[in-house]
Amino acid sequence: MRQLLIHAKSFARIEDALKPFSDRISPLVLDNGHLNHPWGESEADAAIAFGTQDAYFSPSVMTYFQTLMSFEKLEWFQSSAAGTEHPMIQATGKKAALFSGSHEQSESIAEWVLWAGLDFFQDGRARRQAQSDKNWTRLPFREMAGSKWLIFGFGAIGQACGRRLRALGADVIGVRRNVASSDAADRVITQDQARAEIASADVVLLCLPLTEATEDFADAAFLAQMKPGSLLINVGRGGLVDETALFAALDAGAPAQAYLDVVREEPLSENSPIWTHPNIVLTPHISALTMGAQVRTDQVFLENLQRFLDGKPLRNAVSSEVFA
Amino acid sequence: MRQLLIHAKSFARIEDALKPFSDRISPLVLDNGHLNHPWGESEADAAIAFGTQDAYFSPSVMTYFQTLMSFEKLEWFQSSAAGTEHPMIQATGKKAALFSGSHEQSESIAEWVLWAGLDFFQDGRARRQAQSDKNWTRLPFREMAGSKWLIFGFGAIGQACGRRLRALGADVIGVRRNVASSDAADRVITQDQARAEIASADVVLLCLPLTEATEDFADAAFLAQMKPGSLLINVGRGGLVDETALFAALDAGAPAQAYLDVVREEPLSENSPIWTHPNIVLTPHISALTMGAQVRTDQVFLENLQRFLDGKPLRNAVSSEVFA
Repeated sequence: MRQLLIHAKSFARIEDALKPFSDRISPLVLDNGHLNHPWGESEADAAIAFGTQDAYFSPSVMTYFQTLMSFEKLEWFQSSAAGTEHPMIQATGKKAALFSGSHEQSESIAEWVLWAGLDFFQDGRARRQAQSDKNWTRLPFREMAGSKWLIFGFGAIGQACGRRLRALGADVIGVRRNVASSDAADRVITQDQARAEIASADVVLLCLPLTEATEDFADAAFLAQMKPGSLLINVGRGGLVDETALFAALDAGAPAQAYLDVVREEPLSENSPIWTHPNIVLTPHISALTMGAQVRTDQVFLENLQRFLDGKPLRNAVSSEVFA
Repeated sequence: MRQLLIHAKSFARIEDALKPFSDRISPLVLDNGHLNHPWGESEADAAIAFGTQDAYFSPSVMTYFQTLMSFEKLEWFQSSAAGTEHPMIQATGKKAALFSGSHEQSESIAEWVLWAGLDFFQDGRARRQAQSDKNWTRLPFREMAGSKWLIFGFGAIGQACGRRLRALGADVIGVRRNVASSDAADRVITQDQARAEIASADVVLLCLPLTEATEDFADAAFLAQMKPGSLLINVGRGGLVDETALFAALDAGAPAQAYLDVVREEPLSENSPIWTHPNIVLTPHISALTMGAQVRTDQVFLENLQRFLDGKPLRNAVSSEVFA
């Protein structure tokens, strides 16, 4: 018997689907800071855990991770996220014998990116202002079709974006180490090659993970190459962007605007100038937060649970080197 | 020699491309209310005309149409629009021996529709309010993927929308008389069949032309069938919607919001309650107003000009019955 640490909201969604495993797993459910055994307490010789947005963004997130760390033997941790750089996830990865992630949020992030791109190209801001002013001004707008997107980080998220953008007629360039061709891009190039493309990109989209190598990726020198009137989108991590350099670049009009779902300081403190910058649209790290992503991630966990119990390789297994 | 009536802005874009026809056409250019002959005056025995957004929305639009009507012999009129119901276009269609339209605006309208759909599903309004309030509230959102769209009027515009929506994973039902299957829809059905689908549609999209049969198409009975939390989009004509019934329906929450690019009164007078309705997003009949649509329409005209001079059938020819 293994304990399964899981947040109450996640458990409520999948309790029925977990029932067939009730002879081998015993749920340990975190609910409002308290740990419950809804199926009764059992002698467990090991633990597994399902880490979801419900847990990560719960007020009792520390209780969740402290409980994880208190397990004598953590055999497997399934995360709902693709990212692994957070200190708590790093600690979890070191402790767990097996670690698997999820790319099921890519689809929702790609929808957020389309929302950002279309609202920028169509100048939703000016439209809303005109309506508010009762001003029948017939503002023309730019089409996504024919626009050039440079996507740094062309893994699951970048490709989910690229596939949609291509369907809308955009010219998509994916940037990654492995330049194998992809149906999600017109071209896939390396970062060295990408430097020459920045100046002609209508949109630079950051989907990179945060590592020592990508910290301050979009620094003053990078931003200085961007085209006047262009757009910077960041759905990777806040640390990818030098925010001071971004303010200066926006003031110079290149890029013209930034749509940021991530910032360095999260939650962002009230006195940050990011909130009120006229050319920054900020959302609070929500681009993955859809019911669809939850349902798909639950399915990944359930499929991996079957694989784990059968001793088969996990889907989206993350190498232990990532936590070295 | 034929006179070519054209607005100055349109002429500026295509003057170079018209040069090869200078032995057969003589431009008559409307510029700030004045008519000029930039290539010199010629004896012309007939006239043709290119009607574009530049002319239709010019302050001197009446001069444009009066000039058209003054021609002894109007051999051909190329419109940049798909619609033919406007009284001035109807009069033009009656006078012209040949009339051709354009569907090149479909692509820009489809991008406007995606903007509207994504901003609704992702509740852009609440996001912007949260940023304005410096409120780090992690609002989840709905995905376009899996949403059900019912598209009334499944011609060029409806199909341009459907193709994009399907690429984003939406479930698309096209509604039209001819129910031939289409790659732009999961299903194509008749209006009679569509009645049963309204109640389960997440979005009802109106792309119909305005005729006697479609006047007040979305009336109280139609709107009463819509689902709570759903969205009504109108990119057809204002007359398709009973606006008084729409106010009542929005107040009842079904549909939850309306994104309107067209209204009955255009330009909309300042005292209209549409401007300030909390659940209406209004744009001033702009969904076709992209540079891309202009460039594509110019190409349609130039191709049709060659066909006209060669005595070949025109692309997008409109039957004279439409103007009977």
